[in-house]
Amino acid sequence: MKAGIIGATGYAGAELVRLLAGHPKVDELFLSSVSYEGKNITDVYPNFQGIVSLPLLKADDVIASSDIVFCALPHGLSEQHAKGCIDKDIPCIDLGADFRFGENEEVYSEWYGKPYEFGHLRKHSVYGLPELNRNKIKALAKTGKVIIGNPGCYPTCALLGIYPALAKNLTEADSAIIINAVSGITGGGREPSRMFHYPECADSITPYKIGSHRHSPEIAQNVGIMAVGQAILSIIFTPHLAPMNRGILSTIYIPLAEQWKEAFSREKIHSVYADFYIDEPFVRILPLDQTASTGRVRHSNFCDISIHIDQSASTLIIISAIDNMVKGAAGQAVQNMNIIYGFNEKTGLELIPALF
Amino acid sequence: MKAGIIGATGYAGAELVRLLAGHPKVDELFLSSVSYEGKNITDVYPNFQGIVSLPLLKADDVIASSDIVFCALPHGLSEQHAKGCIDKDIPCIDLGADFRFGENEEVYSEWYGKPYEFGHLRKHSVYGLPELNRNKIKALAKTGKVIIGNPGCYPTCALLGIYPALAKNLTEADSAIIINAVSGITGGGREPSRMFHYPECADSITPYKIGSHRHSPEIAQNVGIMAVGQAILSIIFTPHLAPMNRGILSTIYIPLAEQWKEAFSREKIHSVYADFYIDEPFVRILPLDQTASTGRVRHSNFCDISIHIDQSASTLIIISAIDNMVKGAAGQAVQNMNIIYGFNEKTGLELIPALF
Amino acid sequence: MKAGIIGATGYAGAELVRLLAGHPKVDELFLSSVSYEGKNITDVYPNFQGIVSLPLLKADDVIASSDIVFCALPHGLSEQHAKGCIDKDIPCIDLGADFRFGENEEVYSEWYGKPYEFGHLRKHSVYGLPELNRNKIKALAKTGKVIIGNPGCYPTCALLGIYPALAKNLTEADSAIIINAVSGITGGGREPSRMFHYPECADSITPYKIGSHRHSPEIAQNVGIMAVGQAILSIIFTPHLAPMNRGILSTIYIPLAEQWKEAFSREKIHSVYADFYIDEPFVRILPLDQTASTGRVRHSNFCDISIHIDQSASTLIIISAIDNMVKGAAGQAVQNMNIIYGFNEKTGLELIPALF
Amino acid sequence: MKAGIIGATGYAGAELVRLLAGHPKVDELFLSSVSYEGKNITDVYPNFQGIVSLPLLKADDVIASSDIVFCALPHGLSEQHAKGCIDKDIPCIDLGADFRFGENEEVYSEWYGKPYEFGHLRKHSVYGLPELNRNKIKALAKTGKVIIGNPGCYPTCALLGIYPALAKNLTEADSAIIINAVSGITGGGREPSRMFHYPECADSITPYKIGSHRHSPEIAQNVGIMAVGQAILSIIFTPHLAPMNRGILSTIYIPLAEQWKEAFSREKIHSVYADFYIDEPFVRILPLDQTASTGRVRHSNFCDISIHIDQSASTLIIISAIDNMVKGAAGQAVQNMNIIYGFNEKTGLELIPALF
Repeated sequence: MKAGIIGATGYAGAELVRLLAGHPKVDELFLSSVSYEGKNITDVYPNFQGIVSLPLLKADDVIASSDIVFCALPHGLSEQHAKGCIDKDIPCIDLGADFRFGENEEVYSEWYGKPYEFGHLRKHSVYGLPELNRNKIKALAKTGKVIIGNPGCYPTCALLGIYPALAKNLTEADSAIIINAVSGITGGGREPSRMFHYPECADSITPYKIGSHRHSPEIAQNVGIMAVGQAILSIIFTPHLAPMNRGILSTIYIPLAEQWKEAFSREKIHSVYADFYIDEPFVRILPLDQTASTGRVRHSNFCDISIHIDQSASTLIIISAIDNMVKGAAGQAVQNMNIIYGFNEKTGLELIPALF
Repeated sequence: MKAGIIGATGYAGAELVRLLAGHPKVDELFLSSVSYEGKNITDVYPNFQGIVSLPLLKADDVIASSDIVFCALPHGLSEQHAKGCIDKDIPCIDLGADFRFGENEEVYSEWYGKPYEFGHLRKHSVYGLPELNRNKIKALAKTGKVIIGNPGCYPTCALLGIYPALAKNLTEADSAIIINAVSGITGGGREPSRMFHYPECADSITPYKIGSHRHSPEIAQNVGIMAVGQAILSIIFTPHLAPMNRGILSTIYIPLAEQWKEAFSREKIHSVYADFYIDEPFVRILPLDQTASTGRVRHSNFCDISIHIDQSASTLIIISAIDNMVKGAAGQAVQNMNIIYGFNEKTGLELIPALF
Repeated sequence: MKAGIIGATGYAGAELVRLLAGHPKVDELFLSSVSYEGKNITDVYPNFQGIVSLPLLKADDVIASSDIVFCALPHGLSEQHAKGCIDKDIPCIDLGADFRFGENEEVYSEWYGKPYEFGHLRKHSVYGLPELNRNKIKALAKTGKVIIGNPGCYPTCALLGIYPALAKNLTEADSAIIINAVSGITGGGREPSRMFHYPECADSITPYKIGSHRHSPEIAQNVGIMAVGQAILSIIFTPHLAPMNRGILSTIYIPLAEQWKEAFSREKIHSVYADFYIDEPFVRILPLDQTASTGRVRHSNFCDISIHIDQSASTLIIISAIDNMVKGAAGQAVQNMNIIYGFNEKTGLELIPALF
Repeated sequence: MKAGIIGATGYAGAELVRLLAGHPKVDELFLSSVSYEGKNITDVYPNFQGIVSLPLLKADDVIASSDIVFCALPHGLSEQHAKGCIDKDIPCIDLGADFRFGENEEVYSEWYGKPYEFGHLRKHSVYGLPELNRNKIKALAKTGKVIIGNPGCYPTCALLGIYPALAKNLTEADSAIIINAVSGITGGGREPSRMFHYPECADSITPYKIGSHRHSPEIAQNVGIMAVGQAILSIIFTPHLAPMNRGILSTIYIPLAEQWKEAFSREKIHSVYADFYIDEPFVRILPLDQTASTGRVRHSNFCDISIHIDQSASTLIIISAIDNMVKGAAGQAVQNMNIIYGFNEKTGLELIPALF
């Protein structure tokens, strides 16, 4: 298989290079970069020296050479490349936001400040959270025309923590789910800016974009899908920046439905979650005596979830942790590729997290 | 003035040494340590070399020599020394938990696993959050017998963020306030343990003691006091550990009372907060375009608070940040000393935070 | 193949578990731990949950079940297990110091405070730096009795940086090579202590054990071997601790031999180094415009080396960087296993370093 | 006294604001900034809110209003302002490089890429390392026309570590002193760039500008002055970047003169150093059982020095540590101001380092 990466020199792109270079089904890689066209990937990422030595091409040449294309670009730049893939009948996995909102163009344009360029492409697209949409992905793949809107890092972490509670109708109607989330600094990407300048973010914890982060509507839309026919819920999402390279931790507060408050114990809810994800290769429901943390999933495609309950038993507290660059970006993209091709979903993703 | 510190070699004790050594009203310091008795403080804290050179004495000798005594000990060890101070009619400021619960011995004994040893001392004690109890502290000080139960670091940060909402009756009755809090590692003290071992906590964020942290009842008790005659509220407190040395950040979710949801804007609530703390020397309500973070209060006695509101306007989001070792421990203790003696409250605490 | 790890719950042991669990030639793992006997490895290292679920056995049972045994123990504890392996004719790879000094028992006993227990085992042992002793390892392996003294982390990093200069006789006789080395905190192991307590080592750089680190004689001995028949050199080794989890960086100052000072340019020395290591799978000589750093070899088995020269051209400055837990411990041990069995040396070690 | 800061919004400028705002002899501050002219300093540094509220003026207005002026500007921009000060007969303390080279214009222009604009100003200037030039500073101050070339951070740390060895003639003639130095990230200033982008520098140690750092000629020039009439020495200076906010650590290797190798012990050299700096308020020679580290001088004006010797006794190893923003920049500038005015040198600088 020949895989292409458009935008290979951003952090998500480079993580894709790292994962695809070790993927047993990928024989050849083609990379593009606008900023570094003509250079070698090792000029930009010297850590690849001696392992991956590839020229940085034009995007069109990548599409022309590849059997599948990954786009790791700022929002608004993927549509044209996705069109190129659809025209060529090859899958396109977009790590940006352009295909995460499906037919809801108004939400996309409100939050991202531009309308769809090729709106008709959405009929070939699916929100690429495998735990939610695996069957849709497979069905689209069979048509030969498939665009994956690979989920954002915060939404991946939050939605996996919330999904069983919604699907199993544990939540109180008309209440608010609070997602208090903390991200490592790689979430801000490769471009230097004051916010991510070492002395400004080291040794400090900083909330940001309260009520205005672009991942809010993405979370809300999928909570709506997960909770269909059930509780009407609002979402409060508060992102924070912490002095660490990788990882997202979501501390999620879910008001329990009245009928469950008495009946449900932490043990029972733990069973609900464990059963719900029993066949998922990358979701780990931790034992009751453990608590999820980003350190335990570092450099892996796992989402760790631990189940807690507040003392008055009215609120479920879910801790969900991922590596933002793997399950939150490049790893999930590879997982989607595996699904599209019918590979074992763990192929190329058997990354054992290092505790340190 | 002669000030004594019992337990001078723990982190809170050492921070007291640092602050009191620079306090213009303190002429002489007397230090004790059980672990290092007979040594010099510079043997244990080499950073003090050339500045503070003092022998580590027995606790009783510190009490005998001092006009005021600070106890910075593990819980359960301060009572006897507080008794010594009361017997000698000198103030005692306890940085531990022994005097934070006043007459609620059952709460203390439930959470700290032992009954009061000298229960009668509580009639001389007050919970030393100046913003709440300044007048009580002054009144007790006049009696000549005063014990300050210096607040815990998490409660200081959370309570200052919640107080105006409670006092001004902004909160919805019968609802839950959620305190999502993140602490730096010094909060765990000086004793090495796996949890605070560098490779285990660096580059990771870790929730811990969900529903079981000893600061929960301290917060709940004072929320009850602050909200007296008003809303009945429950508290959900979730502590996390972040890879930074100092600082606590509380992200506080407060459901707004029904009558305010329409009427109140973020600007109005900001005014309520700003007015409430207008005379407080160490509480800073940030402008509307800014967000509190621990980096901005580093090495100072400030509590920074920023006001936010979720999009549906049903929940107030308060960000409150302190330096856990200063406003969360030693600085607040010095502030209490200043109140007891009628000094300007900022004396010895004009610490300008460094951004880095 | 069945591989055993004695001392699987220390940091080096856990890293071995991680690498061997992903090694295509290893079918089964057997683990032992004195501290956690009877528990499961996932109780101690929850990051392994869902990947490696193995009971912690007694050391003797591990030896009995395995085709090869790794010892990751404090010094002085491996000899008896190595004896067990030799008696059983299976290879033993010791990550501790017991077999690094070969016949030089007096050096070992001077620095490690005890004599050899089973001195005769040394005739089966070899210092396991593949770049120096690959052939010796292979020769011993053929005898069926082989003990690898896996090199220390500092020596691996320093010796790989020095070796070409010594082998190609670039160094001035009778001079001192200075190794200024910086290590991440995992180098101190898993046991909590004040030195590695987060608040004591974060945000600071700290030299330690100047002139007294146990890796000094190990470096000196092998410099002597590498320089045989040539310059008589002394070694000055200064270790420092830096606030990072992984990595060792050696900044090595090598006085150039008089005859080369004129003749040699940075480019020529770069060629000497590049040629010297041309067939080595894990040594990367960086291009002239780049500088080695620990961030570039993170989580990989590479040793990156960059070549510099001071302005007066009298001193060669070599920067050498490794991941202390991989090339500096578990990765090198696996590399030695691959050599013993005649596997491709990169088997199970194709770890692509992540830049972040 | 009225003090002015030109370039108040860079890191060194902001640190000056912090120190001068707490200086008991400074009544009023005047600040300028080209980038933020018209804004308030608290808009740029929110940590100053409630403490220092000052408009950002034009540089000329600062000079017109002040009794002393500090320039914290990129190199090449201070000359004109220094001229303004000299014309007005007020002292100018330049934290940049423009006045560090005195009459050696050719060195300056070689390394900084431009000639002197107002060369004649150098007759009023002095290199402001108080431990070297205190008397020259005082003498110039008496003339009413004084420009301080405030030393660079690396040179301050290195020169204080080397000075006694040179002054007391301990060094071997014709040899090289090696300065292996590590800096925190604030040394790179406030402007974001890839090198100082959090994910690129966290958790890694990175040498840079080997043989080409602009602090090399500054160190060399002053080593020449300190060693006058004695050993001819060359200097090898290797800077590294470490993941910490503040601090510089120099590990300095000084070949001992032949006659001292036998005679001298570590204890004797310790005495030489202790005696040499006995009257210095900010140099601390650590006891023999201690080692300097940046963590011990954090947020203070101290330079900590510890004395070591390699086993063969041929090389003196000096560890010297400062806070790069205080003794390495703003603190030393205030110390120079104190000298100029005849204040106690510690005025406004009694900053007790916090261990964490």
